[in-house]
Amino acid sequence: MDYVKTLPRLFDIEDTAMTETHNNGLTGRDVLSVDQFDRDKLAYIFQRTYEMREMVAQVGGCDLLKGHVLACLFYEPSTRTSASFIAAMERLGGGVIPITQGVQFSSVSKGESLPDTIRTLEQYSDVIVLRHPEIGSSKMAAEAAIVPVINAGDGTGEHPTQALLDLFTILDELGRIDGLKVAMVGDLRFGRTVHSLTRLLMQYDVSLRYVSPELLRLPMALMNELIDRGIPVRETHDVAEVIENADVLYVTRVQKERFSDPTQYDEVKDFFRITPEVMAQAKSKMTLMHPLPRVGEIDPVLDSDPRAAYFRQVKNGMFVRMALLAAVLGRA
Amino acid sequence: MDYVKTLPRLFDIEDTAMTETHNNGLTGRDVLSVDQFDRDKLAYIFQRTYEMREMVAQVGGCDLLKGHVLACLFYEPSTRTSASFIAAMERLGGGVIPITQGVQFSSVSKGESLPDTIRTLEQYSDVIVLRHPEIGSSKMAAEAAIVPVINAGDGTGEHPTQALLDLFTILDELGRIDGLKVAMVGDLRFGRTVHSLTRLLMQYDVSLRYVSPELLRLPMALMNELIDRGIPVRETHDVAEVIENADVLYVTRVQKERFSDPTQYDEVKDFFRITPEVMAQAKSKMTLMHPLPRVGEIDPVLDSDPRAAYFRQVKNGMFVRMALLAAVLGRA
Amino acid sequence: MDYVKTLPRLFDIEDTAMTETHNNGLTGRDVLSVDQFDRDKLAYIFQRTYEMREMVAQVGGCDLLKGHVLACLFYEPSTRTSASFIAAMERLGGGVIPITQGVQFSSVSKGESLPDTIRTLEQYSDVIVLRHPEIGSSKMAAEAAIVPVINAGDGTGEHPTQALLDLFTILDELGRIDGLKVAMVGDLRFGRTVHSLTRLLMQYDVSLRYVSPELLRLPMALMNELIDRGIPVRETHDVAEVIENADVLYVTRVQKERFSDPTQYDEVKDFFRITPEVMAQAKSKMTLMHPLPRVGEIDPVLDSDPRAAYFRQVKNGMFVRMALLAAVLGRA
Repeated sequence: MDYVKTLPRLFDIEDTAMTETHNNGLTGRDVLSVDQFDRDKLAYIFQRTYEMREMVAQVGGCDLLKGHVLACLFYEPSTRTSASFIAAMERLGGGVIPITQGVQFSSVSKGESLPDTIRTLEQYSDVIVLRHPEIGSSKMAAEAAIVPVINAGDGTGEHPTQALLDLFTILDELGRIDGLKVAMVGDLRFGRTVHSLTRLLMQYDVSLRYVSPELLRLPMALMNELIDRGIPVRETHDVAEVIENADVLYVTRVQKERFSDPTQYDEVKDFFRITPEVMAQAKSKMTLMHPLPRVGEIDPVLDSDPRAAYFRQVKNGMFVRMALLAAVLGRA
Repeated sequence: MDYVKTLPRLFDIEDTAMTETHNNGLTGRDVLSVDQFDRDKLAYIFQRTYEMREMVAQVGGCDLLKGHVLACLFYEPSTRTSASFIAAMERLGGGVIPITQGVQFSSVSKGESLPDTIRTLEQYSDVIVLRHPEIGSSKMAAEAAIVPVINAGDGTGEHPTQALLDLFTILDELGRIDGLKVAMVGDLRFGRTVHSLTRLLMQYDVSLRYVSPELLRLPMALMNELIDRGIPVRETHDVAEVIENADVLYVTRVQKERFSDPTQYDEVKDFFRITPEVMAQAKSKMTLMHPLPRVGEIDPVLDSDPRAAYFRQVKNGMFVRMALLAAVLGRA
Repeated sequence: MDYVKTLPRLFDIEDTAMTETHNNGLTGRDVLSVDQFDRDKLAYIFQRTYEMREMVAQVGGCDLLKGHVLACLFYEPSTRTSASFIAAMERLGGGVIPITQGVQFSSVSKGESLPDTIRTLEQYSDVIVLRHPEIGSSKMAAEAAIVPVINAGDGTGEHPTQALLDLFTILDELGRIDGLKVAMVGDLRFGRTVHSLTRLLMQYDVSLRYVSPELLRLPMALMNELIDRGIPVRETHDVAEVIENADVLYVTRVQKERFSDPTQYDEVKDFFRITPEVMAQAKSKMTLMHPLPRVGEIDPVLDSDPRAAYFRQVKNGMFVRMALLAAVLGRA
């Protein structure tokens, strides 16, 4: 993968269209799972992501998706993700139907099924972004819909756009993916971002380290898959064991709401807190990431550490989503 | 009414304005009731609706309402209707103030009157769409406002844009309205869509059938008006009596929230379920409609039946609202 | 200050940019407090406000802020203020991320700090408007953010854009500020609009009258500051004492939610009701203002009195915010 950061200008604000539409295999397709993305598709999306970033840096927005409407359907609120998609669509000149609150009060309370809601919304829109608390909901929506459906998180299932922005951030911060040592820290059992990023990283020549309390270890099935694929992988309870060699430290929130017993949460919540002392042991070029929100896993004094990439990671999310929206709508 | 589907191109995306503004009698006017629409006005709106559909099919959106802002004020949530108006405004290049949730938490909780809220919002916007649980609220709003107010449902009162999209769908599916046999099924007592559509159909040479449980019969006043106008009309408890001859079967939801006693709801809810067996008795060109959401009145296996028009009906709603917004804002 | 109402056309819809960007000292700056605005800055903003009003009157909207995105972050709902900012941004061609409901259900419920939420949103947006129930929150947000933060009300703290629109309205209604007698009525203790407007008026050659029940008198600190600056000022319990000489009567709502004891509220709520009888004693050119919503302080029959400026005041809010957004984004 050769990512030229000084990109050829493939977009032209005056024309409102990127020059060449070639068959990227994403036009009209749903984005449900990271498993849809092989290295070629990832290279394509990341190339487009760089173009989007360049476009925003230069002019803020363009008219590439003018005449297109995004239905942003969030059955559970997620300010970060919905805001990211809304900004992405608006910076591409498209319209947004923001249904980010209270779906529970309206059609759903009247007893409407998810497929009916989806088939209704697709009459108004050209693409649907769905966040839903139940695993499998995005697949169900995609089967009902003719327009592309993008999964923005379905319960403990997948959240593919988060994984894409995570991987893009690793690439962008370090210039490559192959050859890296990536350590993931925190709730590895319930954290879907860890699972999805792991599935993407499997396609590269990486070495993986998983740091968690016993209660929150990576699921066996995923661990077995890594072993079967021959990915170098190790588990540990202690960040100290991985910090010196890691190129990427991917920290996740231990979500209180995942625990049935709150005392268990209190036992582990500060277990993997990243502090200046921890960072002092890390490489000078290590990248510190977090899907956010954080609730204490990373000391805010680290925000000014150049290795702290989590807010750049947030911004990359908007650019990746711009690239995806353009791709599924056939404008990239 | 001669609706040429291959329309002259009255819009031009480059110009951002439809060519000719003529006096359609709607500019600057409120849309409160179906009673405002005689056959001429309906013909005009439907002509514009076809143009909007053609425009969306070709280019997705245009700048006809650029520089205009719609305030979408929903005191009770209605995902379908608010999404439809939002998409309509955005596809015409206008802006939207989406107040589709939580009006109850803000100005209203501070004790503000509806006229004051309306007079406030019209300072920011060029047209107001209002959904409110109380009958007569849209009239009150329209009296307070200088800008046009569009009634998007006021309690058990009217919901004129729903009736317009229903009538447009009949026309579009069957090519005409005069001469048709229209059967309406379900909750004919509380269902305002039935009442409003009935009022529009009165202007045409149609034959009407009303199918409901005893508890949910069409209100006497409306029935008497039909009789006085000489419209051929019959009531029945049984879909089987009307299915063979109907050109349109308009099915409505029996809304649980309308019943004070939930056992009454349980008694009737499956009474008028439309199944493949029922549809086997219908004409091959019959149109099956439903204002949605449905909660079991129409078996989802019928969705693939070419006669099932309810999702096309949803989409027509966006086009009709585009036509209305353009009309009241004087851009059509 | 010489405000020429027939303005030179500094904007040009075709160019999408106002012609000349000069150093107004606001580009890239936060708007947190009225104390940031001296007479020169006020003159500048009001000049731009007149231009915005003229632009909207002529063409409704323009593309001045195309490619810019506003994050509208309201931790407590305020339909009026959020709608005003949304309309302002849309009429300037910018995009909006509307987070006007339910922030409490999402990131906040996951325990995210305000600075983290702000630093996240600024990745997507070019300017953040914040409404928050806690005093000092906007300052905290501004310290976290790189993009400009506009305070849209922080608890009992400031609400500077309200004060700017109030002052602009006085200027616009009466053609000047120096030399005026301004009377403020109602809840002078908790009413932050009164405090902020007072702070702005201090810079002018005005005479101030404060009318309130004993319980709700102007805070001592503010009163002392007025005295120290040599502003002619008097307090009274009785509107009748000020009505004859006032050029401006600024009435505020006595907010029930400010009282711990509801019987205290009931005692004072009708104390300062403005009726036709009161207005009969006022000057023919007096301006009657109110930040709205009102709950009985001003009799609605007065709405048709030409001196009743409160709905024009609302509209001026949109124009002032357009001017501010353009200014902090460096497009004015």
